[in-house]
Amino acid sequence: MPITEENTPINAPRGLAGVVVTETELGDVRGREGFYHYRQYSAVELAAVRTFEDAWYLMLYGELPDAGQLAAFTAETAALRALPGAVCDALPAIAQAGLVSGPLAGLRTALSLLGATAGFRPLYDIDADHRRADALAACAAVPTLLTALHRLGRGQQPVEPRADLTYAANYLYMLTGQEPEPRRVRAIEAYLISTIDHGFNASTFTARVISSTGADLAACLVGAVGALSGPLHGGAPSRVLDTLDAIGTPERIDSWIRDRFQRGDRIMGFGHAVYRTEDPRSRMLRCIAEEFGGPRVEFAVQVEARVEALLAELKPGRELHTNVEFYAGVVMELCGLPREMFTPTFCAARIVGWSANILEQAEDSKIIRPAARYVGPPPPQPVPDIAP
Amino acid sequence: MPITEENTPINAPRGLAGVVVTETELGDVRGREGFYHYRQYSAVELAAVRTFEDAWYLMLYGELPDAGQLAAFTAETAALRALPGAVCDALPAIAQAGLVSGPLAGLRTALSLLGATAGFRPLYDIDADHRRADALAACAAVPTLLTALHRLGRGQQPVEPRADLTYAANYLYMLTGQEPEPRRVRAIEAYLISTIDHGFNASTFTARVISSTGADLAACLVGAVGALSGPLHGGAPSRVLDTLDAIGTPERIDSWIRDRFQRGDRIMGFGHAVYRTEDPRSRMLRCIAEEFGGPRVEFAVQVEARVEALLAELKPGRELHTNVEFYAGVVMELCGLPREMFTPTFCAARIVGWSANILEQAEDSKIIRPAARYVGPPPPQPVPDIAP
Repeated sequence: MPITEENTPINAPRGLAGVVVTETELGDVRGREGFYHYRQYSAVELAAVRTFEDAWYLMLYGELPDAGQLAAFTAETAALRALPGAVCDALPAIAQAGLVSGPLAGLRTALSLLGATAGFRPLYDIDADHRRADALAACAAVPTLLTALHRLGRGQQPVEPRADLTYAANYLYMLTGQEPEPRRVRAIEAYLISTIDHGFNASTFTARVISSTGADLAACLVGAVGALSGPLHGGAPSRVLDTLDAIGTPERIDSWIRDRFQRGDRIMGFGHAVYRTEDPRSRMLRCIAEEFGGPRVEFAVQVEARVEALLAELKPGRELHTNVEFYAGVVMELCGLPREMFTPTFCAARIVGWSANILEQAEDSKIIRPAARYVGPPPPQPVPDIAP
Repeated sequence: MPITEENTPINAPRGLAGVVVTETELGDVRGREGFYHYRQYSAVELAAVRTFEDAWYLMLYGELPDAGQLAAFTAETAALRALPGAVCDALPAIAQAGLVSGPLAGLRTALSLLGATAGFRPLYDIDADHRRADALAACAAVPTLLTALHRLGRGQQPVEPRADLTYAANYLYMLTGQEPEPRRVRAIEAYLISTIDHGFNASTFTARVISSTGADLAACLVGAVGALSGPLHGGAPSRVLDTLDAIGTPERIDSWIRDRFQRGDRIMGFGHAVYRTEDPRSRMLRCIAEEFGGPRVEFAVQVEARVEALLAELKPGRELHTNVEFYAGVVMELCGLPREMFTPTFCAARIVGWSANILEQAEDSKIIRPAARYVGPPPPQPVPDIAP
């Protein structure tokens, strides 16, 4: 249904569901097929066999790097991990403030300051190479910011980034100060790759709306971080573990789930806005979790199976399956991440997807400016003058 | 043209132009009539006879306050102007960083920190009264943040807010440290009122997209500030004065404008996305400027008349008139504001409109999540495995 008349108001469905805002070469989510891809590659396949840097390069340049390009890109981005002194100095105060509003509020502030400190200029005023350089600088610094804020909030000193580690390994290293186990690095790397991009969700769309004004890269990213911090968007992986804890034992699954249903509560980790099949990220993360094994994983698999059976019974005809958050929480716990770092870790991957979207949007000169329908009392009432 | 099928992709016009995203009771812009209103009142009439606090109250509560409500609201918001100590302490570093990326980058960081320091919680998790309290706290602090950052950037100490002054008077006072002239207070107050809201522009829409995720108020506002910082959105009032300076004298108007046309350059301060008539804000601000009088105002009126005549000759059939930015720059200069504070001053008014939009959006439980069309190379290519 093509719509071309700019001056005729068009009633969009609530939440702009299904409204095609733009064309993209970055990727797509095929909800009915249970498949999503970055550029011309299956995202889940990339997660299985490539590094995070490979996928990052692919998003920015449109092709996978060869071995030489990968080495150069890995070295280039590793060199950008250290923070400017002015940002380091401000982090303790930002970490303190973030103790109430959460780690994404801290990242939002720190990333905003980083962009200003680095002198990011409006995307409208700079060329594509300059934009890409800003994007690399911002993305490379995000794990450093997140882990430093986390440690400062717990009274620990930040751990300096190490340029000899990959993005994923360095992230785990900066969080704990310990050399991470290869098994954990590989698991978290697969998770990070699988989380880089996923259609026109609210945070990605926010980033693109801001980019359409020609604002600087930090302005776009900070808006996206803010959107991701919303409970209706990025907030659930840790709550899945809370659910597993609350259920406790296999024999309590049925009664616990039925009770939630009767109260009309959502079951965290199930259902997705786009997928009408199993979430391909969920399938991949379950495989990773099962390679680790252990009672937590066995229990999660049991809960998944029982909830799906109960959902089929209680909401027949609706395809409700685990979404990415269900096993993401399990895998992040297996990799030693504390629950308050689950959404920030998601953010450490998605920052690359946002950046690619911001750069793509910056190529389009049309500002995103929709309309609304006024439904209040009819104007104009004459304004009663009570001014002196 | 109502569209209701969620699963059928809908091609929207570029930039979502004319696409009705939601219903609103806050106001409307009638582009063909050259008229806009807040709630049930003409915005320009409000600007002529009411205080900023009146209009602020109207946006939040839907009715103009009576004298007692106005006094209480003015006292309530005046008491919220002082900054938390943690934010004060961070401002020098933020001001220093903002010297390159501009005052809105500074506000973006400071407002993000303020929200976290004040412990703003997700809008999704709090009730309407709590949301409104957060909105008052954020809006009341914005003039304090903006003027403090400006002064710190010039090596001056911030001026503490005064609770005995109105919003507009206190803004001018904090900027200069001097008791402002009543004529200037009234002029800037009219400008601020006229700038509170203006349809679903990119920053207001950004604020609403973030709000739709249930994120906290600072997350929403910070995204909006970022969008406003884009050169295609909020960046032009000071450039209008640059244009007047560049033209210099009346006899150079024609040759200067014709030269710009031949080079295909935009003329700053002319043309608007929605208005097909004179911008009602421009008319009001010209009247205010003419009350001040003086050679700058006379020259601006001459330039306006000649540019409109030349535009009619060179682009026949297009209704191109001065927009809000043309006389906004002139009026702000007459009120003693330095050019780098023009867009921040706009922001000191629009923050109220953003907040009202954020609170209205928070009543809607549907996340804003549009779609895009993939136009890249067809997936999936098998991923070549070069991992060790």
